[in-house]
Amino acid sequence: MKKLINSPDNVVAESVEGFALAHGDIVTRNTEPLFVARVQKKEHGKVAIVSGGGSGHEPLHAGFVGYGMLDAAVPGAMFTSPTPDAIQAATEAVSAGAGVLYIVKNYTGDVLNFDTAAELADFDDIEVSQVIVDDDVAVEDSTFTAGRRGVAGTLLVEKLAGAAAERGDDLAAVTAVAKKVVENTATMGAALSACTVPHVGKPSFDLGEDEVELGVGIHGEPGRKEIPLVSADDVTDHLLDPILADLKLSEGERTIVVVNGMGATPASELYVVYRRVAQRLKEAGIAIERSLVGNFVTSLDMAGCSVTVMRVDDEDLALFDAPCHTSALRQGM
Amino acid sequence: MKKLINSPDNVVAESVEGFALAHGDIVTRNTEPLFVARVQKKEHGKVAIVSGGGSGHEPLHAGFVGYGMLDAAVPGAMFTSPTPDAIQAATEAVSAGAGVLYIVKNYTGDVLNFDTAAELADFDDIEVSQVIVDDDVAVEDSTFTAGRRGVAGTLLVEKLAGAAAERGDDLAAVTAVAKKVVENTATMGAALSACTVPHVGKPSFDLGEDEVELGVGIHGEPGRKEIPLVSADDVTDHLLDPILADLKLSEGERTIVVVNGMGATPASELYVVYRRVAQRLKEAGIAIERSLVGNFVTSLDMAGCSVTVMRVDDEDLALFDAPCHTSALRQGM
Repeated sequence: MKKLINSPDNVVAESVEGFALAHGDIVTRNTEPLFVARVQKKEHGKVAIVSGGGSGHEPLHAGFVGYGMLDAAVPGAMFTSPTPDAIQAATEAVSAGAGVLYIVKNYTGDVLNFDTAAELADFDDIEVSQVIVDDDVAVEDSTFTAGRRGVAGTLLVEKLAGAAAERGDDLAAVTAVAKKVVENTATMGAALSACTVPHVGKPSFDLGEDEVELGVGIHGEPGRKEIPLVSADDVTDHLLDPILADLKLSEGERTIVVVNGMGATPASELYVVYRRVAQRLKEAGIAIERSLVGNFVTSLDMAGCSVTVMRVDDEDLALFDAPCHTSALRQGM
Repeated sequence: MKKLINSPDNVVAESVEGFALAHGDIVTRNTEPLFVARVQKKEHGKVAIVSGGGSGHEPLHAGFVGYGMLDAAVPGAMFTSPTPDAIQAATEAVSAGAGVLYIVKNYTGDVLNFDTAAELADFDDIEVSQVIVDDDVAVEDSTFTAGRRGVAGTLLVEKLAGAAAERGDDLAAVTAVAKKVVENTATMGAALSACTVPHVGKPSFDLGEDEVELGVGIHGEPGRKEIPLVSADDVTDHLLDPILADLKLSEGERTIVVVNGMGATPASELYVVYRRVAQRLKEAGIAIERSLVGNFVTSLDMAGCSVTVMRVDDEDLALFDAPCHTSALRQGM
């Protein structure tokens, strides 16, 4: 295993320390328990948003802490859910008197621990609502989930719900925005290589030199099937077809598209994939109103990408376009 | 070779096509010859800035085209200099009547072709000045250069010169800003893996399972030496020591730091490296005034990173902080 780390035991702590040092104008770090919060707390009377999950998916979630997106992110160990006490501590730290929304990717551990944290918050009279993100159309149940997995669509949930919270929507309304994103968002990914978790020390699965893992999860969980290595356009079609089928998108509809790198794939390749997505949607008469191309929800050193499509209306676009200032995404400020 | 491409012959053209489709609000693409320019041309009477070089280093340079940075970027084939006619066409397209600055990384082909383009521009009565970036302290001469190589420090040259041009400095003044950045910037990189150029199809060099290439170039050129795999802190020290020696930084001085990913290295590892840089500079009494951590000047799918340190004063910081709006870097707008 070749990594720029000091030891598997402290990689998350040291990485978050470096992250907080690099972005001290945006975030502050709490060490025990570990979480990252906005350096300038949201004004009283607004809904706060907390997310989190296993580390190894950076910039998700800490990279999206800041004005217009998350108030706090709780990183667990690599590919391991954060503990309820850490989530609770983050909740208390950022609550601004109008309730807290948890954005939870649909993995059994995350769902359980955010649920426990919500109960703990209830003791402290902090109202919590939760939205489970399950945008991955590749498989129904999987290694770590009942139901679909939460993957790169999480970024859009955090962006739009964050904008709704920032403009002053109440907890029910912010929750409704997040749920609407989940309902209208579908993602599927493909891996060209496995990832290596530091404390495991070897690749998470075997993939032949000429194989692509279609529908891979963001922890290297098995996907739909392995296929022979094909062109970028063909890989993109394999990802896009199930997405379009799931969303039942039809001519004249409008979308936001995210082409997300898994961590080790060059930007040039992601743009080749985006080109094909744009081509296909144009042919289908579906408009791409906004797009993001880059590494947003990664899987350590996995090579590959995912494609996310969200059906949008004017209200969604206004929330997407609203200003945000986080270390990984900045708009209009 | 496993890549998300359709064919080695069209990867650059298709990637730039996808890039222009994804960022149509910022850039426009010219196809014959190939270059990318700001969609909204700079106002007349201001200096325009053109850069470019071999593809495979994305987001450099096209990702830095936009308000406050570059007016045009000219991508060559993978790791191959752009042709003079393409540079000339970009120059004509973006010239706004106050001269054009070329920012050229110090590789023999780039220097030659930008030089020829400058002569061609002279026929068209466009005044051109050139700044050669040679921030890499790893080696004096190398595979593709006489003198030091131009690497990740190029990002800072483009940012600060871009800000100077945007505020209306004349050609001599913008050129002076760029030269000042070059004089005060030093970079060194390390690779944990080689990169694979699409039309070559195999890794650019051999590196043992337990070896690190210290001082590697951004095309996978040999560096200073191969060392056994050591901790992230030790790798960082190996990069930082020659940088500090080169810049002769002393206590009380101020800096901007860039920790740059080579393409396949997870953000979590880059932040572990940044943590060590911050620790070391703090111990030395040197202030980090601003920092950037991420993939800015990459080498396709190479794993590794580079560290860049720039000595700065108030004037430099004002230029660094000036607004910019490009696809890969956005500040204050």
